[in-house]
Amino acid sequence: MPLSFTDRILFGGDYNPEQWPREVWEQDMALMRRAGVNLATVGVFSWAILEPRPGAYEFGWLDEVLDGLHGNGIGVALATPTASTPPWMNHRWPQTLPQNPDGTVRTYGSRNAYCPSSPVYREFADRISEALAARYAHHPALRLWHIGNEFGTVCYCDRCAARFRTWLQDRYGDLDGLNEAWGTAFWSQRYGDWDEVIPPRQVQYVINPTQDLDYQRFASDLLLSGFVSERDIVRAHNPAVPVTTNFMGFFKGTDSWRWAREEDFVSLDTYPDPNDPDAARDGAMAQDLTRSLGEGGAWLLMEQSPAGAGWRPVATPKRPGLNRLWSMQAVARGADGVLHFQWRASRQGAERTHGAMVPHAGPDSRVFREICELGGELARLGDVVGTRVSAHVAILHDWDAWRAVELDHQPHSGFRYLDRVREYYTPLWRANITADFARPQADLGRYKLVLAPSLYQVTDAAAANLARYVERGGHLVMGAFSGVSDPDERIRLGGYPAPFRDLLGLRIEEYWPLTGEPLAVQCAELGDFSAATWAEWLTAEGATPVATFTAGPLAGIPAVLRNTYGAGTAWYVATLPEAAALARILAAACSRAGVEPVLAGLPPRVEAIRRGDKIFLLNHDDESVEIRAVGREPTA
Amino acid sequence: MPLSFTDRILFGGDYNPEQWPREVWEQDMALMRRAGVNLATVGVFSWAILEPRPGAYEFGWLDEVLDGLHGNGIGVALATPTASTPPWMNHRWPQTLPQNPDGTVRTYGSRNAYCPSSPVYREFADRISEALAARYAHHPALRLWHIGNEFGTVCYCDRCAARFRTWLQDRYGDLDGLNEAWGTAFWSQRYGDWDEVIPPRQVQYVINPTQDLDYQRFASDLLLSGFVSERDIVRAHNPAVPVTTNFMGFFKGTDSWRWAREEDFVSLDTYPDPNDPDAARDGAMAQDLTRSLGEGGAWLLMEQSPAGAGWRPVATPKRPGLNRLWSMQAVARGADGVLHFQWRASRQGAERTHGAMVPHAGPDSRVFREICELGGELARLGDVVGTRVSAHVAILHDWDAWRAVELDHQPHSGFRYLDRVREYYTPLWRANITADFARPQADLGRYKLVLAPSLYQVTDAAAANLARYVERGGHLVMGAFSGVSDPDERIRLGGYPAPFRDLLGLRIEEYWPLTGEPLAVQCAELGDFSAATWAEWLTAEGATPVATFTAGPLAGIPAVLRNTYGAGTAWYVATLPEAAALARILAAACSRAGVEPVLAGLPPRVEAIRRGDKIFLLNHDDESVEIRAVGREPTA
Amino acid sequence: MPLSFTDRILFGGDYNPEQWPREVWEQDMALMRRAGVNLATVGVFSWAILEPRPGAYEFGWLDEVLDGLHGNGIGVALATPTASTPPWMNHRWPQTLPQNPDGTVRTYGSRNAYCPSSPVYREFADRISEALAARYAHHPALRLWHIGNEFGTVCYCDRCAARFRTWLQDRYGDLDGLNEAWGTAFWSQRYGDWDEVIPPRQVQYVINPTQDLDYQRFASDLLLSGFVSERDIVRAHNPAVPVTTNFMGFFKGTDSWRWAREEDFVSLDTYPDPNDPDAARDGAMAQDLTRSLGEGGAWLLMEQSPAGAGWRPVATPKRPGLNRLWSMQAVARGADGVLHFQWRASRQGAERTHGAMVPHAGPDSRVFREICELGGELARLGDVVGTRVSAHVAILHDWDAWRAVELDHQPHSGFRYLDRVREYYTPLWRANITADFARPQADLGRYKLVLAPSLYQVTDAAAANLARYVERGGHLVMGAFSGVSDPDERIRLGGYPAPFRDLLGLRIEEYWPLTGEPLAVQCAELGDFSAATWAEWLTAEGATPVATFTAGPLAGIPAVLRNTYGAGTAWYVATLPEAAALARILAAACSRAGVEPVLAGLPPRVEAIRRGDKIFLLNHDDESVEIRAVGREPTA
Repeated sequence: MPLSFTDRILFGGDYNPEQWPREVWEQDMALMRRAGVNLATVGVFSWAILEPRPGAYEFGWLDEVLDGLHGNGIGVALATPTASTPPWMNHRWPQTLPQNPDGTVRTYGSRNAYCPSSPVYREFADRISEALAARYAHHPALRLWHIGNEFGTVCYCDRCAARFRTWLQDRYGDLDGLNEAWGTAFWSQRYGDWDEVIPPRQVQYVINPTQDLDYQRFASDLLLSGFVSERDIVRAHNPAVPVTTNFMGFFKGTDSWRWAREEDFVSLDTYPDPNDPDAARDGAMAQDLTRSLGEGGAWLLMEQSPAGAGWRPVATPKRPGLNRLWSMQAVARGADGVLHFQWRASRQGAERTHGAMVPHAGPDSRVFREICELGGELARLGDVVGTRVSAHVAILHDWDAWRAVELDHQPHSGFRYLDRVREYYTPLWRANITADFARPQADLGRYKLVLAPSLYQVTDAAAANLARYVERGGHLVMGAFSGVSDPDERIRLGGYPAPFRDLLGLRIEEYWPLTGEPLAVQCAELGDFSAATWAEWLTAEGATPVATFTAGPLAGIPAVLRNTYGAGTAWYVATLPEAAALARILAAACSRAGVEPVLAGLPPRVEAIRRGDKIFLLNHDDESVEIRAVGREPTA
Repeated sequence: MPLSFTDRILFGGDYNPEQWPREVWEQDMALMRRAGVNLATVGVFSWAILEPRPGAYEFGWLDEVLDGLHGNGIGVALATPTASTPPWMNHRWPQTLPQNPDGTVRTYGSRNAYCPSSPVYREFADRISEALAARYAHHPALRLWHIGNEFGTVCYCDRCAARFRTWLQDRYGDLDGLNEAWGTAFWSQRYGDWDEVIPPRQVQYVINPTQDLDYQRFASDLLLSGFVSERDIVRAHNPAVPVTTNFMGFFKGTDSWRWAREEDFVSLDTYPDPNDPDAARDGAMAQDLTRSLGEGGAWLLMEQSPAGAGWRPVATPKRPGLNRLWSMQAVARGADGVLHFQWRASRQGAERTHGAMVPHAGPDSRVFREICELGGELARLGDVVGTRVSAHVAILHDWDAWRAVELDHQPHSGFRYLDRVREYYTPLWRANITADFARPQADLGRYKLVLAPSLYQVTDAAAANLARYVERGGHLVMGAFSGVSDPDERIRLGGYPAPFRDLLGLRIEEYWPLTGEPLAVQCAELGDFSAATWAEWLTAEGATPVATFTAGPLAGIPAVLRNTYGAGTAWYVATLPEAAALARILAAACSRAGVEPVLAGLPPRVEAIRRGDKIFLLNHDDESVEIRAVGREPTA
Repeated sequence: MPLSFTDRILFGGDYNPEQWPREVWEQDMALMRRAGVNLATVGVFSWAILEPRPGAYEFGWLDEVLDGLHGNGIGVALATPTASTPPWMNHRWPQTLPQNPDGTVRTYGSRNAYCPSSPVYREFADRISEALAARYAHHPALRLWHIGNEFGTVCYCDRCAARFRTWLQDRYGDLDGLNEAWGTAFWSQRYGDWDEVIPPRQVQYVINPTQDLDYQRFASDLLLSGFVSERDIVRAHNPAVPVTTNFMGFFKGTDSWRWAREEDFVSLDTYPDPNDPDAARDGAMAQDLTRSLGEGGAWLLMEQSPAGAGWRPVATPKRPGLNRLWSMQAVARGADGVLHFQWRASRQGAERTHGAMVPHAGPDSRVFREICELGGELARLGDVVGTRVSAHVAILHDWDAWRAVELDHQPHSGFRYLDRVREYYTPLWRANITADFARPQADLGRYKLVLAPSLYQVTDAAAANLARYVERGGHLVMGAFSGVSDPDERIRLGGYPAPFRDLLGLRIEEYWPLTGEPLAVQCAELGDFSAATWAEWLTAEGATPVATFTAGPLAGIPAVLRNTYGAGTAWYVATLPEAAALARILAAACSRAGVEPVLAGLPPRVEAIRRGDKIFLLNHDDESVEIRAVGREPTA
């Protein structure tokens, strides 16, 4: 991927002028200029207006919009409108509707009413993409293509079943391969004919876990094939225009590592909850993921709300200054653009209560005034474009590990993958230690420290990769319940975590989920602590116990261990320590690995990120802080 | 409507003798006489027995019942039995079954198993209504017609879809009108053909809000058309017999303002929970609504339970005396009759645990003894018949405002319409200030004070009506989140609440739903208080701030305001104050408006209502109270 | 039934070698020998492997398995594999899939994907049972037949509807009988034709309770007919091999009294939660039920987990020693065998996280070591085989009473049958008083004391049986809300509990479910207490009040009564006393009845059971206890 996709900081939002009469368009242009908008996302939900009848396109209004924007110096992110089908399609071809696991159908009247494997849908989607590209690929306003919107629809119909079988044939070759991989010898599930294989629909009891897992993989790949189809169409008309689609951060439904490599650059929709005290952390985490998906290159904040997010149960607006603060956080963490959903608040429809750059109250409002100030500030920050955020820590993130650890009938139904990632991310974020996210099989050599908060399922190659990383002098901290299954969700035998036993110097006999009161853990080196939810019945086989359970059936069993492996060090945290304790463990690991914060000694709620030669200092506290003497320069 | 529909207080209940052998009927007559019963509701669920095969009527047993009742001096409320279809209909014509939004069907074995737009259902329903009317319209026992029962079934089938389209064509004229009203330019929902328009069924994400809202309106109107059809049939045979159907108080599913005008008088089914400390308030509120629906004329308490309500999760019976107390409350608030569900407790079927006038234990029971005492008392209260309850306060209540404020994706999903109505009703009820309910577009000139607890959606005409009311000297208290949308659920722009900005002297930029701890509000005039759940980012534009938020992003923003408008005064309560604070605000508004209680100085749990020249004093406390010196006479 | 089905204590578990390659089989044999395994349950989920295509059986591998086990001295419990259908069946004959009440279908990919009334399913199930029996009925390894697995599937399809009608015709004769029994005169449910009668599917409101109840009975009988069909097939080939199926203890779906009489001996799957402080009580209760189902003969613990149960939300393993403790509890309470699910932990499939005798860690594990120790111990306990557990207390347990009291619209939706049974069982268990379970119509003469914790529905015969039992000198304690309805769920009139009024010497007018704070009860004889959830408005008519409510509307009403009836004594507990109070009441009843513990004076968490001439002492405490002087010998 290129280092960036723009030569200035992009600023703007989704622009849906088709909801408004012409006179509003003129006001829009003037207000956009006032706000410093230089990019408008157009056409995301315009299919039914662009193609009011099958095959009959009406581009006149869109010509007008693009010309108008261009005339006002505003670029366009043009969307293929394929996320939301026109009613005529679903009505005339009901088989385009997506089906639930129980066989009932989701119909239209909302959005995303399509079966991703429907040939009718795909044909109409490709045709309108072609028509748009043919008309606008060289339009002077066009800056980038925005394919669809927030891909995520899953269908369980018979056509999807057939596509699933093809996907499985690619993966497993023949039925024996499938039966072996899915473990169908259990519960009399052996398939004798490909036609018998179906999606994980409604069943009497718990579904086959590999069937479930593979359908999640397939569903992501199926949507991706739709993205690729539209991408190829628009790219063919003008390869110079970069193509993206808007990710939703840590969204389980699509494996963004696989998606990102099909994009020209990565973009993010992010809606941290202003009522959540950890919102800034969540924002940073999604941003770091997005940057990492783009291999460290710049990325685009495609959607955020300038005020409240209407879909939230309690849609409290951002307080004054908060949209600026979070926008700057995105730029600091690598964004080359800050866009919003949406430009002008809708009067009607399902998102009429969603915040917008021009709220219902109009431009005479604190929201619009803040937007104008933000536009001005971003315009003055243009020299960050083309610069990179550097990180010496990598946090492993893997969609298969996520999907697999959350399958049914795991030892603890409350063990959620993202909780683990957040627990490990948080102390680093608080300490202003910047982290990338990485795939377990990635080249990790450039990182001083690697965290694997949750790696329940792991490939042989990834396991070997981590061992090699440590052997060559790397530092690794691995979280509980890792290294358990292979990609077919087949448990690795002989003592957990089979592929990491040597690396970690230990052997686990049993996972020991906990209910009730936290357990006491003794830890001379880093201070005693308590741990809840999870423990493991393990024996050190070479590793040094760092912390040990002190009571109950687990008394005397190590809870945290550290192992020297080759030239490196591997920690294993076999429980879920209280937050302060995990922070101490990670601080110790950082210290041993030589990882240092961007800046030390900052007030508690001040976030520091270095991008290129700039250090961004973001105060997340309600009160002002004065930062007199910035500490020593970071060593890297 | 006439002032009353009876010349004495009616007393009795639902009588379902078809569940019992003949020997029980004779006991029933004797016991009814003992209890002073003068009205029995007959035939509500008798369809399958009256018409055991399609078109084959068996009226013999009903002749016997009506003759028997008449012979014992007991009148009859005769029901069209159309709420509950016979199995043969649903079995032979499965298309009569109602369909859920997900396409699955509700079948028989319960009650109300019909699609309201099914022509088969309607034809059989009209035919049996015709047959009943032909046979009994001039029966000497007949006092009134009771059409169906607790209308409320909603269906989403294709036939209903077709009816919905007709309803929409009536409302919007053409498809452009529909597209405009529903805001289909958003999310690619533009309809190109009427056939594409369907009910709000199961969808992927949130449904179009106006589609949802219109279906609620349509569903109410569709049921009403069934009521009207049967009403016209029975009325044609003897216009002198009044016609009603039993409302369920604040039931969202049917717009009772529209229904009431089709009835000869209004009746109520009411089941306050004896375990709820606010039950008496809820009862009063439903009764005041019922009286108001009948334009202040008398109404009939059609159903209450003498003991417990079997459908309640914990069906605690009414304690001794409570049925008398609540019956008197109904009479005080305008009822000219007190009926129960049901006369004799069922031995079988889904309501076998529901309380009854003759319980399972038989007449030798405290319940039946209390029934007999009540019958006697009511007989001595006959001179209230024909007298009115007077009120100087109106509380605005509107089904569209209710439906609209509870659509999906409002700023606060916990903002419930009825909570607002209850919050405003309660302090008045506690202070023994009688209130009517009124439509926002009603002539309000006779009221000293109007409360609008929740008027999220409002028509232009209603907005003008309220302004006119205040301008001419009226007093208005408007609750938060009012005046936001028009009848198409189109947000009114330029600063909320657009149609009331002048009237209220303020402008709101943003709604600010709250989570967490209540906020502190400073109020020199009425005492400081706290407020939760809801705030608004507003500016006084002429209004006087009465209370102001003191901390957080809303610090300094008014929470309560008062504006002089023409000759009147308009208050705006931009938050949800704690109960005591709202009571003080409303007391201040009453005081300024010259509204006084029925009686002042009563003990806290004593309710006072004036009907005609009588004052009813109801002690809701467990302990007796002595009321020595009744305060001064009320001024009105 | 015979006194036992084995001449030694059986030990082993479910063995699913088809999940593993041949080399693992050899290890299995060696490990089984090491562990002392002498019984393996084989073939439970093997259908798709035994019959990979319709009618094409592959028994070769099973020959090998049985021969191998036999060669190692291990017996076999051979299952008909009919609990889990092969995909080919459901795929080719979709009508074999079970249907939900809403009409949607449960498909395959899990287990139990069959409609129990499907002729296709039944035919294939019978055929493979026949083929297995023909081949293995005389195999020297065969010890017993295990029919299906944990029967419990319920379907609501049209074919089941037809079977239901046949079942109803058997029960009620004609439609008049059905209409009478179901009380269809209510809510217009009268059936005019048998074809109209359907299962209790999805409906608008609450379903007819007798329809619901009868469908529960029918569903149990329908499954039972499948069991009987397969039993007859396998029995025909070798009547000497006993036949069982694995019960799930207090499982509402199947009436185990009716099932047990069709079995040669009874077996139990039991999974008390190691995190539940009452788990040992629950285990004992299920074991006592199982013994009682087998008329006091020995029974088989067919499944328990040696570690955790993977289906549990938090699947904490059994701590060291716990599997031994609970295994001994089973033997003490009559088991002649202790089996586990399963032998070797699955690597794949839905139960891959379920505990096993050989865990994922392999034989080098504390779990397998404990299994080996247990096997050794059980081998040394062989002389208990053929001995009985004696009990002087019977607790009445009845599936109809259970089903009926939990129908919709009972007075308190939180009133759960099993809570009542547990409340009465617990104090006895804590006091080491052994109890049987018995049907209300059983001959109770040999018991000193009978408890009827919850007998809402009761037949006339059972009511008479209880009266006779007391009249002849028996002691009875009856719990609240008993004696209410007849088998058609028809309320018995004239004052509750109609069939027990004489026996108990009282009359109840109203049931009085409670919310909120517990009520105070005065009890001079046994100490004051509080009671919650439930009370009854009753009058003593001969009985002596033992405890009385002191406040609220129930003040002065007896809460506990005792009545002398004939030569015996009947207590009635008209409320739900706090646990300690119920313990005192039951202790008093035991004392009057002359019931004594197995051993008195034991430490609190030590359980004592006498089986034959042995007394088992089980310490459920985490700490060791020393029992020096065992008290006096029990008198019986």
